[in-house]
Amino acid sequence: MAELAQLIDSEVFLAYATYTTIVLLKMMLMSVITAYFRITTKSFSNPEDTATFGKGENAKKFLRTDPNVERVRRSHLNDLENIVPFIGIGLLYALSGPALSTALLHFRIFLGARIFHTIAYLTPLPQPSRGLSWAAGYAVTISMAYRLLTTGLHL
Amino acid sequence: MAELAQLIDSEVFLAYATYTTIVLLKMMLMSVITAYFRITTKSFSNPEDTATFGKGENAKKFLRTDPNVERVRRSHLNDLENIVPFIGIGLLYALSGPALSTALLHFRIFLGARIFHTIAYLTPLPQPSRGLSWAAGYAVTISMAYRLLTTGLHL
Amino acid sequence: MAELAQLIDSEVFLAYATYTTIVLLKMMLMSVITAYFRITTKSFSNPEDTATFGKGENAKKFLRTDPNVERVRRSHLNDLENIVPFIGIGLLYALSGPALSTALLHFRIFLGARIFHTIAYLTPLPQPSRGLSWAAGYAVTISMAYRLLTTGLHL
Repeated sequence: MAELAQLIDSEVFLAYATYTTIVLLKMMLMSVITAYFRITTKSFSNPEDTATFGKGENAKKFLRTDPNVERVRRSHLNDLENIVPFIGIGLLYALSGPALSTALLHFRIFLGARIFHTIAYLTPLPQPSRGLSWAAGYAVTISMAYRLLTTGLHL
Repeated sequence: MAELAQLIDSEVFLAYATYTTIVLLKMMLMSVITAYFRITTKSFSNPEDTATFGKGENAKKFLRTDPNVERVRRSHLNDLENIVPFIGIGLLYALSGPALSTALLHFRIFLGARIFHTIAYLTPLPQPSRGLSWAAGYAVTISMAYRLLTTGLHL
Repeated sequence: MAELAQLIDSEVFLAYATYTTIVLLKMMLMSVITAYFRITTKSFSNPEDTATFGKGENAKKFLRTDPNVERVRRSHLNDLENIVPFIGIGLLYALSGPALSTALLHFRIFLGARIFHTIAYLTPLPQPSRGLSWAAGYAVTISMAYRLLTTGLHL
């Protein structure tokens, strides 16, 4: 396990592991927020989920969409669409030997941008708050991909 | 390639590779189930997909949503939302040197929980079957993240 | 960092890194295409996004779904559903020591299939163009998973 120990002890990889774990936990929080809004607004997609709130016709009225639930779900999907590229490209970037300070700059901006994106989406803050935070995370991922594709390629 | 061979030969990593592959294949199965329900219920989202079943106005009626198709799609999206964090955090967890028996416990509970979640979603089983299986997979991922963040951090 | 350097210098891993980066950038492009169609058709999901185009009742009419926007979003979700398994299984496959030519064959077919899938989805081309390109990418991922599960398993 010597190699694994050294791999995980590299500071850049450790930083990648830390930020990836935190940003994934943030994304997982969206499931809990969705459940919270579904229960407080009594808005469900599945008939079996409404059984607690009533029977028969009375339960059917809870099969509805609520604007707040839909907003959280869009925010969750946006996380998936942006965090998946960050994790995949970030892993390869972390293994490509960047300077620790440069890597940390990328990871910190991404995490901050995604946290701010969620706040801007759920509050909601007026545009372009959400747009700019999305763009910041997007730019970080493009920057890591650029380094990867310019330092080594095997097509 | 000595390092790679040793990396892949670590039993924890091999277990991670096995469970990740199986849980991703399970997720991929959802695409086939969606296609199956789309074809058997003749419910499509794209006009070009209905051409086999009729022409002009006759084909348009197949551009509809079917409750079973939507159910499979929600199940698929729930897989994405939960399996992506498991893969990302699980990879880093597997590289952080946990005991094999502890790691296997995490991976087995997660795989079992996600398979049961799909069964509970598609049958559908009465709640809280689906809720509990979702929570079990969620708890496994949180547990791995907790170990990662407490054994080493680089913020 | 010797191990990392050797890891990233393995030609199979370098090929994996290259194709993964490109296919993730292709997926990220879908966000920009969605934004483009949302703006050109003035079709938004969030009230705060319509503020530029009008106020009060005048802005509300832009809270609508457009067939082209929905098409791009389905294409984006299909990318997520298929590229996530490719990245996860592909990483493990790349570490399992396949022949470079075999690995390249897998990665090239996958990238080509996903690019063609997007073109077939957005044009749209008549079926079975989209179906076949989806199946090609799916088959590549299954083939890599098959190798993984037959060369080493730890259940």
